[in-house]
Amino acid sequence: VSVLATGELDRLVKLLARLPGLGPRSARRAALYLVKQRESLLLPLVEALALASDSVRPCSVCGNLDTGNPCTICNDTRRDTSLLCVVEDVADLWALERSGVFRGRYHVLGGTLSALDGIGPEDLNIESLTARARAPELDEVILATNATVEGQTTAHYLSDCLSGTGVVISQLAHGMPMGGELDYLDEGTLGWALKSRQPVG
Amino acid sequence: VSVLATGELDRLVKLLARLPGLGPRSARRAALYLVKQRESLLLPLVEALALASDSVRPCSVCGNLDTGNPCTICNDTRRDTSLLCVVEDVADLWALERSGVFRGRYHVLGGTLSALDGIGPEDLNIESLTARARAPELDEVILATNATVEGQTTAHYLSDCLSGTGVVISQLAHGMPMGGELDYLDEGTLGWALKSRQPVG
Repeated sequence: VSVLATGELDRLVKLLARLPGLGPRSARRAALYLVKQRESLLLPLVEALALASDSVRPCSVCGNLDTGNPCTICNDTRRDTSLLCVVEDVADLWALERSGVFRGRYHVLGGTLSALDGIGPEDLNIESLTARARAPELDEVILATNATVEGQTTAHYLSDCLSGTGVVISQLAHGMPMGGELDYLDEGTLGWALKSRQPVG
Repeated sequence: VSVLATGELDRLVKLLARLPGLGPRSARRAALYLVKQRESLLLPLVEALALASDSVRPCSVCGNLDTGNPCTICNDTRRDTSLLCVVEDVADLWALERSGVFRGRYHVLGGTLSALDGIGPEDLNIESLTARARAPELDEVILATNATVEGQTTAHYLSDCLSGTGVVISQLAHGMPMGGELDYLDEGTLGWALKSRQPVG
């Protein structure tokens, strides 16, 4: 027996509950909110979803999601073609774009190596990365994978793959986050921050 | 300048971020997940949303959301018509239905009284409640508002409104939740649990 009075709402709740960040309870709240905000939220969302479904595709060069192929970033001639930043996911690309600090191009792996989940090199966009790394204009590949075990394992593997290409291979600095307090930092971060300490002045 | 490469995704993220329980970051993750799970999640969600939008409406008797009017619960002749349970929201009705402990009918207020938010009695389904409370078959109105300041204020107000109707007015018991540990309970709950202690055996 369904817990909800109607199959239509029940089905909507079940689909919403599959979104990352929404559990069964928040999916129920979201479904009710959507039905109550029919004109201002539900109908615009239907339209936005349908539009995204029709138009958004992975970029065949870098793996970014965009309406154009190659994507806006790959097509942007003002971008520095000598720098390539490798990220795990499109969300990481977005995070770097929001920060506005990187003006090169990206390469989206589509995940990390994981023996546990059975994800090997052939499941990630690694072949296209090594091909791009041989481009004559490229000077440096920045491995911007997450500072997790999987992210760092993947970075090590990539650094091996790219070692023959002649490009400089770098990775993001580890250390205290801005605004971080020593008392709240884990030992790993504190250890890195101490080991990588910088001269002052 | 948009932080995302495409306006279509940007718009989708902004709409998703308006759902309760989703912040900007989880909205971005949800949008990416939807685009990646196009066939298995995005398209079914579009369909479910459109269907809910077309078919789900508030019940004119109790305020529940359903495809029929009156709703399935109001139409269910096996329900006990002598009991009416007043809840703040449809989500609360769902919670009681999931528990399976209540076999009467419901009345959904559509919120709580709140001077701060400018919500007065005329903004809630109170007039229809007092009308339903005068039905000859009705014996008891259970005020099942939340155990919050607003919920309890609303319950007090309703109990005043209903005092002339002759029905028994009750409210949910306060006390320790099942599985609760004393050390983790707030003082208010502990105080109630102690004051309302029950004889054993």
